[in-house]
Amino acid sequence: MQKDNGHLFIKACKREPIGRTPVWIMRQAGRYLPEYRKIREKTDFLTLCKTPELAAEVTVQPVDIVGVDAAILFSDILVIPEAMGMELELIESKGPKFPEPIRTEAQIDKLKMPDVNDALSYVMDAIKLTKEQLNNRVPLIGFAGAPWTLATYMVEGGGSKNYKYIKSLIYSEPKLAHKLLDKLSDIVSDYLNAKIEAGCDAVQIFDTWAGTLTPWDFKEFSLRYIDKIVKNIKNKQIPVIIFAKGAVHSIKEIADTGCDVIGIDWMTNIGDARKMVGDKTALQGNMEPCMLYAPKERIEEEVKKILSQYGYGTGHVFNLGHGILPDIPVDNVKFFIEKVKELSQAYHNEYIIPELNKVVP
Amino acid sequence: MQKDNGHLFIKACKREPIGRTPVWIMRQAGRYLPEYRKIREKTDFLTLCKTPELAAEVTVQPVDIVGVDAAILFSDILVIPEAMGMELELIESKGPKFPEPIRTEAQIDKLKMPDVNDALSYVMDAIKLTKEQLNNRVPLIGFAGAPWTLATYMVEGGGSKNYKYIKSLIYSEPKLAHKLLDKLSDIVSDYLNAKIEAGCDAVQIFDTWAGTLTPWDFKEFSLRYIDKIVKNIKNKQIPVIIFAKGAVHSIKEIADTGCDVIGIDWMTNIGDARKMVGDKTALQGNMEPCMLYAPKERIEEEVKKILSQYGYGTGHVFNLGHGILPDIPVDNVKFFIEKVKELSQAYHNEYIIPELNKVVP
Repeated sequence: MQKDNGHLFIKACKREPIGRTPVWIMRQAGRYLPEYRKIREKTDFLTLCKTPELAAEVTVQPVDIVGVDAAILFSDILVIPEAMGMELELIESKGPKFPEPIRTEAQIDKLKMPDVNDALSYVMDAIKLTKEQLNNRVPLIGFAGAPWTLATYMVEGGGSKNYKYIKSLIYSEPKLAHKLLDKLSDIVSDYLNAKIEAGCDAVQIFDTWAGTLTPWDFKEFSLRYIDKIVKNIKNKQIPVIIFAKGAVHSIKEIADTGCDVIGIDWMTNIGDARKMVGDKTALQGNMEPCMLYAPKERIEEEVKKILSQYGYGTGHVFNLGHGILPDIPVDNVKFFIEKVKELSQAYHNEYIIPELNKVVP
Repeated sequence: MQKDNGHLFIKACKREPIGRTPVWIMRQAGRYLPEYRKIREKTDFLTLCKTPELAAEVTVQPVDIVGVDAAILFSDILVIPEAMGMELELIESKGPKFPEPIRTEAQIDKLKMPDVNDALSYVMDAIKLTKEQLNNRVPLIGFAGAPWTLATYMVEGGGSKNYKYIKSLIYSEPKLAHKLLDKLSDIVSDYLNAKIEAGCDAVQIFDTWAGTLTPWDFKEFSLRYIDKIVKNIKNKQIPVIIFAKGAVHSIKEIADTGCDVIGIDWMTNIGDARKMVGDKTALQGNMEPCMLYAPKERIEEEVKKILSQYGYGTGHVFNLGHGILPDIPVDNVKFFIEKVKELSQAYHNEYIIPELNKVVP
């Protein structure tokens, strides 16, 4: 399939020279948009994920309404454990729930490894429909949960305060934990490859619970499997983004996976992150999500701060440091996007030595 | 008041040579102990805090039962906002609640600044009783919440997922936020000075929600006030411990406050933290709290790992990376304490050049 690599977002991921910083927002197809809420009035969250026409519609909404530079396919990371045979209850306001969490080896063995093109055909259909509707205006990102984050939900049975069950599993029965994580990394690899086949222009791996682990456990129980997934991705032209929240301690090792972009949460100065990874990857982030509650002048000030922290040149995809919150005013979101587009230009109009991809201020 | 600085814990805080690493556990007077639960059957949490005889009894329990090297006065950080006039509901299993959270300048102005020896006389009485009962077996730590963490509870009205209200306050009305934080730093300074006067041998400032802030907001809205408190402490002989969870990004600036010890959460390798602060402060931490659910061999392995990460010499107070969880088996806690005491000796029996406080392996 022919990929258009002319988009700002793709160029920034690949650290190619650009005229301004691209911007999108994690969870941008979501409840802060009245148009999204209107669809959700009639459809529950999981049905929305599973109805390609509706999933495509809400995926495209933020492109039209707030002007983001990339779309991200509306879905949920937990469609994977569901496809593996786990019963899933998804109530958006309450968080996800697995009524029968994984606690035994027999349960791990029982998890199915279906053909993702069959079991998750609704995702592939939604991708094709979305690509048609986007009509190459912006690229489409596909995503999946990292094995560690998926396993956490599957073993805890939902959200958790102290992660007692998944932590007990890795400490008391590490072999069992590895068995589960290995299965998950296989299916996630298949899933992302299928998404790319179906038309996704980039993929992002979300490791929301990375920061619950010690740095050494993160390497053993999470990064190892993310690394496996990155290496399993067949189309090497497609940018791979890794967002491991709270794991900046391992940023160099994340870069070593061969990913193209590392997502940065708001607890790190993105300029410091850039110093740590050097020229190895692009960076994505990292405005604090609650900043979008603030007055416009304050939002503008923070956009300026983060642009200047990253500094001159390509390799920055602007985003929040985590997902957008459901009650953020849409007007603030539009203002934020406009300001990134406007203010970032100054960081790209220097003379660039193409052979070095280096900026001379 | 004459202080006995001969205790291991105090010596480690001051980075003086010792024979083994001292150990205590955050929230060690708590629900994992059957003896504690027995008292709580008859007494609610806040009444326990306010009854000196009972507070002293549960404070001493872990010294007798699990053999920790320091006691920490049983209390709650939210007795401060209560003393300032806020109604407080403390249900241990549900988390704290302020039915009328702070949302206006008028509410900030209305907060009382009482004499802590009057308003919190029950704390001072509990300290005196505890000191009698401890009879100099181990030192007594007194604690307080950092202004940022106290303000977060006071403005959110309890626990929070996204910290919408406190974040909106600092972003939209920073002057108001500073007014509140400044008031809190004054009363916390008075409170810690009174606790020291009453007999505490060390003090710890808990900034549980430090990690919700960007590094630059942490410096402006949290560390600035912690710094003020550290400088306000009159008795310069008393070790001051700062535990700012999730704020290792600012560890050097935390050391610059002049504190004696920095608490480290489990998301940091304590050896890396030691490299960052150098000889400036001692470090406290940092085993992952869920590790105490694991089999004994695994606990021992982790104790070994953390001891070797810190390395040779004084300046390490062993602890968990956060509070102990309520359903940890007591037997595992005893084993953990024993193993720290036993295995740490090897890290202290080198020849020390006293003038340099340096270890020659």
